[in-house]
Amino acid sequence: MILQWNELASIKRELAERDWFPGTSGNLSIKVQDDPLQCLVTVSGKDKYKETLEDFVLVNEDGQPLTDEGKPSAETVIHLEVYKKTDAGCSLHVHTLDNNLISDLYFEQGFITFKGVELIKAFGIWEEDGQLTIPIVENYADLPTLGKAISHVIEPDTKAVLIRNHGITVWGRNAFEAKRHLEACEFLFSYQMKLLHAKAANLKEVIKNGSY
Amino acid sequence: MILQWNELASIKRELAERDWFPGTSGNLSIKVQDDPLQCLVTVSGKDKYKETLEDFVLVNEDGQPLTDEGKPSAETVIHLEVYKKTDAGCSLHVHTLDNNLISDLYFEQGFITFKGVELIKAFGIWEEDGQLTIPIVENYADLPTLGKAISHVIEPDTKAVLIRNHGITVWGRNAFEAKRHLEACEFLFSYQMKLLHAKAANLKEVIKNGSY
Amino acid sequence: MILQWNELASIKRELAERDWFPGTSGNLSIKVQDDPLQCLVTVSGKDKYKETLEDFVLVNEDGQPLTDEGKPSAETVIHLEVYKKTDAGCSLHVHTLDNNLISDLYFEQGFITFKGVELIKAFGIWEEDGQLTIPIVENYADLPTLGKAISHVIEPDTKAVLIRNHGITVWGRNAFEAKRHLEACEFLFSYQMKLLHAKAANLKEVIKNGSY
Amino acid sequence: MILQWNELASIKRELAERDWFPGTSGNLSIKVQDDPLQCLVTVSGKDKYKETLEDFVLVNEDGQPLTDEGKPSAETVIHLEVYKKTDAGCSLHVHTLDNNLISDLYFEQGFITFKGVELIKAFGIWEEDGQLTIPIVENYADLPTLGKAISHVIEPDTKAVLIRNHGITVWGRNAFEAKRHLEACEFLFSYQMKLLHAKAANLKEVIKNGSY
Repeated sequence: MILQWNELASIKRELAERDWFPGTSGNLSIKVQDDPLQCLVTVSGKDKYKETLEDFVLVNEDGQPLTDEGKPSAETVIHLEVYKKTDAGCSLHVHTLDNNLISDLYFEQGFITFKGVELIKAFGIWEEDGQLTIPIVENYADLPTLGKAISHVIEPDTKAVLIRNHGITVWGRNAFEAKRHLEACEFLFSYQMKLLHAKAANLKEVIKNGSY
Repeated sequence: MILQWNELASIKRELAERDWFPGTSGNLSIKVQDDPLQCLVTVSGKDKYKETLEDFVLVNEDGQPLTDEGKPSAETVIHLEVYKKTDAGCSLHVHTLDNNLISDLYFEQGFITFKGVELIKAFGIWEEDGQLTIPIVENYADLPTLGKAISHVIEPDTKAVLIRNHGITVWGRNAFEAKRHLEACEFLFSYQMKLLHAKAANLKEVIKNGSY
Repeated sequence: MILQWNELASIKRELAERDWFPGTSGNLSIKVQDDPLQCLVTVSGKDKYKETLEDFVLVNEDGQPLTDEGKPSAETVIHLEVYKKTDAGCSLHVHTLDNNLISDLYFEQGFITFKGVELIKAFGIWEEDGQLTIPIVENYADLPTLGKAISHVIEPDTKAVLIRNHGITVWGRNAFEAKRHLEACEFLFSYQMKLLHAKAANLKEVIKNGSY
Repeated sequence: MILQWNELASIKRELAERDWFPGTSGNLSIKVQDDPLQCLVTVSGKDKYKETLEDFVLVNEDGQPLTDEGKPSAETVIHLEVYKKTDAGCSLHVHTLDNNLISDLYFEQGFITFKGVELIKAFGIWEEDGQLTIPIVENYADLPTLGKAISHVIEPDTKAVLIRNHGITVWGRNAFEAKRHLEACEFLFSYQMKLLHAKAANLKEVIKNGSY
């Protein structure tokens, strides 16, 4: 378990450096064993910009703590749904400005699709016309309901789900892959926001007509 | 007092890393005792990106220095008003681009309200339809007048007040809570600015009509 | 070879601090000898925010690895084309939001030209009416084709090529010059995006008419 | 001289952390003695994100090097004009996106004025209706001409001059004050850009009419 603890601590440190845990938000987990499912998950309500010896707690498949580091994150149920539905070995949930914006702007559509952008290769999509789709679900206050809603939209090739005005849940077979997916998602979201504003401002016309 | 000094130094260091003290702006305080009120407050005019042994000075309920580290911040009066009106144990005042923008754009309205955004949970608001309101006051050059204006708008559930084109004053029962509130406020302000620009640029229409 | 390894490691570290390797993207190389051509290039698929003893692998002029640190980046072919066509001693390929945006907005035009901006001096252009042109090529999924497309647009004074929705390839006679060119390009791209939005929003009129 | 060297090295380190020296741009100086004038100035063409023992060179009032650390910055002439015209003890010249934008957008007007914004207090302006004016000059390629143009617009209360599409030159009686002025300028420029875009996008109307 020390290996998984260290991997999760390393990811937590890197995401903290990116400022992705504002106001104690966000939660992370890593699978420790499969059958029965056990995973390490961040302790509830802590300042994730700091590093302590009680950052993570081991929970079982029902989210019950197996060690006494502290109370598991209230959103542990979401991580468990991901492990039950996919081959994920690590699951990350963070709030950023751009993942919140995308979740709001594309909510009616129910998903966002990326194609023709190099960074989708981070999801193993190398075909010239390949595409990446990320579903978006309502932000149910009741967390088991939210967990089920997320589970419901996961298709075999899904690697991430957006929650409206709340953030992203993203995973990978291991910690390395989960972090790669998360970094790529955030790049794609930020790029999409900039493309949308460029389109809205008609920048291609500005370029054609102007001295710029 | 060494405990409170260290807590305040730790918060100052973290906010400095976020670049929230441009041009020596900003001031911080932490309560040391209640009756009579005493608190540590940042010394006036120092570069808060640097750490020294004279960063804070102990003041009494009238803002008079009780130690000789230096002159207390001119805005100490604001911190004292907060301690007298609330159960705050720590109070933070910083200038950021987005808290200045929000204070300017919503000044006529006199407040800004957030609802339906996950980060309001950082203020202990967990209800599905819960909301957070932050009052905005005029930036009186006379600091006792400004202090009174801030005190005047504080309701029992107020955790932060914006000053027009000046910055935010935010507090919590302790240093941990004050920082959590501040981080959440700044996320909410930045997100609101991005939502407003998305709305102004009609991005939902761009999404419906365009190839993006 | 230890000198070149260390120079490349130093640049990798600096670009990582700028967050220019999202989702394991980006690749770097440095020339070790000229005839026959050998260069150190980043190993494929690694997290470039981390530093290891297997970050780079030596390849020959055909891109074949000469040491066993790992598989060379799939885009090694692009670096080799640059070394064959120019006097480059170091070549850098990174994905940023603004280099992607510029590559998209100016793709139809096939290039972007900068003049009247101080930072073009970083390319040795000191004349009052000097200008810098950066060609933009299609993002062919087939990497040898992409390499040829890049080679095809390189003129004697070309120092960088943009790939549509993919990123920039930039070089210099040595590591110092390559990094200087890259930093200047990214500043110029970000500035151009801000100028375009200022133009689209008609900010000069806002200034003339308004209270701002 | 070791004191001034260390003060300048400290400022260089802090500005480097802010990424204000892209593509080897920027130059800094500090006065070492008054009559005859001598100052330490950054050596030309170096990567200012790195720290070496040859970062600064002592020059006389004509800009001639008095030590052999290297060639003084080509823009040393600007620093000398500032020392001759003002009581400056330290002068800083950096390129940022927002100081370039402001210098471009307000160039026809020839200056930019800030009032009603708290951060002008960093310039010692504490009156309720106080204001700060920063002149903007053409970016003459001939550096002595540029130096004279800057000298020409300096009034007794001037603390900074913008050069069109080039950057800012800002000073203070000492290193501490120069840095405080620079940080405040950059905050004010960034805030002004955001205010202009908020005005152009009519955000106050969006707030009044919309659900946001």
